[in-house]
Amino acid sequence: MFGFEYYSPTKVIFGKGTENQAGELVKAYGAKKVLIHYGGKSAVKSGLIDRVKASLDAAGVAHVELGGVVPNPHLSKVREGIALGKKEGIDFILAVGGGSTIDSSKAISYGLAEPEKDVWELFEKKRTAQKFLPIASVLTIAAAGSETSNSCVITNEETKEKRSYNDDIARPKFAIMNPELTMTLPDYQTESGCTDIMMHTMERYFTQGGNMEITDEIAEGLLRTVMKYAKILHHDPTNYEARAEIMWSGSLAHNGLTGCGNDGGDFASHMLEHEMGGMFDVTHGAGLAAIWPSWARYVYKNCLPRFVRYATHVMGVTPGETDEKTALKGIEAMEDFYHEIGMPVNFKELGIAPTDEQIKEMADSCARASGGHKGSAKDLYPEDMIAIYRMANQE
Amino acid sequence: MFGFEYYSPTKVIFGKGTENQAGELVKAYGAKKVLIHYGGKSAVKSGLIDRVKASLDAAGVAHVELGGVVPNPHLSKVREGIALGKKEGIDFILAVGGGSTIDSSKAISYGLAEPEKDVWELFEKKRTAQKFLPIASVLTIAAAGSETSNSCVITNEETKEKRSYNDDIARPKFAIMNPELTMTLPDYQTESGCTDIMMHTMERYFTQGGNMEITDEIAEGLLRTVMKYAKILHHDPTNYEARAEIMWSGSLAHNGLTGCGNDGGDFASHMLEHEMGGMFDVTHGAGLAAIWPSWARYVYKNCLPRFVRYATHVMGVTPGETDEKTALKGIEAMEDFYHEIGMPVNFKELGIAPTDEQIKEMADSCARASGGHKGSAKDLYPEDMIAIYRMANQE
Repeated sequence: MFGFEYYSPTKVIFGKGTENQAGELVKAYGAKKVLIHYGGKSAVKSGLIDRVKASLDAAGVAHVELGGVVPNPHLSKVREGIALGKKEGIDFILAVGGGSTIDSSKAISYGLAEPEKDVWELFEKKRTAQKFLPIASVLTIAAAGSETSNSCVITNEETKEKRSYNDDIARPKFAIMNPELTMTLPDYQTESGCTDIMMHTMERYFTQGGNMEITDEIAEGLLRTVMKYAKILHHDPTNYEARAEIMWSGSLAHNGLTGCGNDGGDFASHMLEHEMGGMFDVTHGAGLAAIWPSWARYVYKNCLPRFVRYATHVMGVTPGETDEKTALKGIEAMEDFYHEIGMPVNFKELGIAPTDEQIKEMADSCARASGGHKGSAKDLYPEDMIAIYRMANQE
Repeated sequence: MFGFEYYSPTKVIFGKGTENQAGELVKAYGAKKVLIHYGGKSAVKSGLIDRVKASLDAAGVAHVELGGVVPNPHLSKVREGIALGKKEGIDFILAVGGGSTIDSSKAISYGLAEPEKDVWELFEKKRTAQKFLPIASVLTIAAAGSETSNSCVITNEETKEKRSYNDDIARPKFAIMNPELTMTLPDYQTESGCTDIMMHTMERYFTQGGNMEITDEIAEGLLRTVMKYAKILHHDPTNYEARAEIMWSGSLAHNGLTGCGNDGGDFASHMLEHEMGGMFDVTHGAGLAAIWPSWARYVYKNCLPRFVRYATHVMGVTPGETDEKTALKGIEAMEDFYHEIGMPVNFKELGIAPTDEQIKEMADSCARASGGHKGSAKDLYPEDMIAIYRMANQE
């Protein structure tokens, strides 16, 4: 067991119609002029943006808009937001969307709070942030957990680098969560979200030593819950109860709670996927599902007790003759679950076919972004990353 | 399932030696002059107060001290703290102790932030707080959860009223949690703490309708964890791992997490115990253990599905022929657990013997403090409260 810090100050307002509280909430946090940041046209067409604007108007808070955030959000859009924010004198950013929009908002906030510095330096790990403009969200996709997390992932389209910067200074002030807003999401996006949610907790679960029992209990309960309701949503996408369970689990999976007492987590699967996302622009959660089984088979012998516990406590596997067999049954059960919700378990099913040259390029980039190596279940070096990418490419 | 707000902004610093960070932390929150508030002499004798003072000195933060907080903390001590705080120009309160000391600190903070008003009015529900002085804690007892909660319970010794006031404004800035600091606690206090921790989650578990699966999973995992390590500490009080599991569970049990999506919780057992604490000055957790079985047997038929789930998911009971039998087996298993950790299950074992007159007085006071009635599993009126007190008095 390790010492830890836990800090999750974001106020959550959860339930039907809560988006109509946006105006009074930003006002309570002192906002004078808000940047409403969003992604595609669905938020506009559905009337959500209009409802949020009406709520801000009713509270007497000025606002401007910037749409067009894409999945794997782009640095160019961040720069556009910073320029707009400077010009308009923005003092609060309200993200209306999912993780991409929230991450784009966080990056814009970094840029506006320290306007004399280049924001990409943070993602290159050349400096740390000293200031941050307050942000909050009206969440429309349950997946990234960015609505309460300290993390932010941006893709530099020019260099094809997908990079993260994590800082507690960026924890959002509040998160408005109305499960109904996620109901129109296509199934593939919903299930990618469920996969991402689970992976945020799994990254903290498969570690070397030190996990607390209370943390394991919470993690396992969360994983069982997400699996249960992901399966329901695959067939019944407008089930409010299921949407609510997934949405709240999505925040708890990544606000730090499921890692208390561990060694900081593994997060190799996320780093491996970031390269796939940077090079092929795949949906993040689907990319995680496509890499995880190969990662798991490559590392499980180094972290056998955790894989055995996962198999029995989360996947409901009956222990096999040996711990190794039990662990492998757990990985197979996970693949079955991915298939059951329409997720890929390798590159072919994901729809990508990197050349060996591209695999080496992704591994090099991944290692560079990780300071040379990454992982806790097994510490991965470039040759390990290449091997895992190749496994995912061959199956 | 109900909509909800979740807000737990307290920063947790958990692990060995973390009390030495007190100075830099209060400084980071802008403190100029700190009131160090504590209970008995053990915090002084153990050298903890000296370590905290040294940490404040090293950070260049001025401080004054006020000890003498007692269990079921007194309004008179709160008034003493307010007077001292005014005189000394205190701008931050650091509680070094358990729930009583933290609650006393919260009440002093209410008084100092609005010095022209009488603080007891809050507990009489005559007004709500508009301001609060920042507080934080170095926790030495795992029990009340006050280190991250919004609640505060104070006893007016003159009127023998034990009253609570809950307000998010009072959430502490940070909580320093070093499990080693709890190791010298007498076993009875340790196990009373474990009982209190469990009850904070059980109060949110036994409700009418609406509990979310993710909330139930977290609650059940937390209860299993506390039971496991409470039994270990009964025989091995210096087990660091067990102390850590209990300490972190204590915060999670009462920061709101285990109630997300429910109807606000039951909390009748707490209200019933508050009267026992006000009249007889019993240890809070032991008082809860002494009243809960009678409460449970009185209400279980009104909330049968929850009692059945509790029996099977938490107490590991094999389902009986009927749901009623399963529920009763769960209550019996809970009594066995209380006995295993040295806790009472009725008034006789608790060491009190109220007269029927006193029982009626407690019930009247309890109903008055609850706005006439209290409870979710079953809504209790004065006659119900009398019946439960009598059951606990007879067994």
